[in-house]
Amino acid sequence: MTSSLSRLVRLLSGGFSNQTQAFDNPPLFAHILVKFRPLPQLKPGSLLLEQSYAIAPENPYRIRVLRVDRRGDGLIIHNQALLEEQRFWGAVEDEARRRAILDDDLLPLQGCTYVVREDGGGFKGEVESGCRCLVERKGTTAYLVSTFEIDATGMRTVDRGHDPTTHELLWGSLAGAFAFERTHDYSTEIPVEWLAAFGE
Amino acid sequence: MTSSLSRLVRLLSGGFSNQTQAFDNPPLFAHILVKFRPLPQLKPGSLLLEQSYAIAPENPYRIRVLRVDRRGDGLIIHNQALLEEQRFWGAVEDEARRRAILDDDLLPLQGCTYVVREDGGGFKGEVESGCRCLVERKGTTAYLVSTFEIDATGMRTVDRGHDPTTHELLWGSLAGAFAFERTHDYSTEIPVEWLAAFGE
Repeated sequence: MTSSLSRLVRLLSGGFSNQTQAFDNPPLFAHILVKFRPLPQLKPGSLLLEQSYAIAPENPYRIRVLRVDRRGDGLIIHNQALLEEQRFWGAVEDEARRRAILDDDLLPLQGCTYVVREDGGGFKGEVESGCRCLVERKGTTAYLVSTFEIDATGMRTVDRGHDPTTHELLWGSLAGAFAFERTHDYSTEIPVEWLAAFGE
Repeated sequence: MTSSLSRLVRLLSGGFSNQTQAFDNPPLFAHILVKFRPLPQLKPGSLLLEQSYAIAPENPYRIRVLRVDRRGDGLIIHNQALLEEQRFWGAVEDEARRRAILDDDLLPLQGCTYVVREDGGGFKGEVESGCRCLVERKGTTAYLVSTFEIDATGMRTVDRGHDPTTHELLWGSLAGAFAFERTHDYSTEIPVEWLAAFGE
């Protein structure tokens, strides 16, 4: 039987593009690529995340190592930055560089863990409550309110920044969620040892 | 003495990019190119406008023929669509195709005229009041509220769609204006006869 933990890791292990949305709604949505790819040398459930403008995939604007895990009856996703992250830009397309990512390169992002629940055939997640996931943008600090929905077809995400004191919305899209279609499947790269560790 | 009409035509006759803004604020601003280029075969002040995602300049999402003109003591910009516009996609980079644009290809966009006033070293414009500049987006009609500021350095624009009945904001960026830097100068392509017509 497939555990919900392994189903979430499989669903995440892919490539996503919002090209249709961007071209249907000019110029309101930047065209973005998002990829999650297993990192077999790290703890089970570890996925490299790169997000980039489609025009510049070699310069991701966000690179993270996520780790899907159980907490109580539910699922969470640990959110980790990379020290010296520029060393790893583009690793999502370069196996040797992916293999070079080690535990010592990871920096846990406190307050930025995603809490995930099953929803129909997919999952919904949001940054844990507490307003502690702080993000800096041009000298202004905001806390991140971020949600995602993922299923076999694609993914929807909303990221918004709020003022830590007034809770006022500082940035984010009024035009709504980013809507991604699935373009790549990396689930075959999930090591069998992970599936055993997930209890399959 | 340079008239304000000719100064506005000169300032508009250029190329603009918001690359800096897009890369400073991922993923909130799509990277956009905007070009205005004189159409000497048409009435004085006529400029071809193309706007595109930087990733796909050959498929502009908006192509218009603007015409800067006097009204009373002030300035306005007539806003015209192109019939069979796909014939002219990319004309902003292709002189032969630009020359092929004739008066019969133009379709005036009622209610979408910009009203412009001088402001410091530049100009500010906004779509005339009346909520009559209707824009369709995926089957939903909105009226456009659009403003711009332009000077020698660059241009800032805000486009928002509102519900014609409730006036509710339907789309637009919460993150603020698009901020463009000037990348090209096409003011040398303004025909001398236009300057005479402008009263220089």
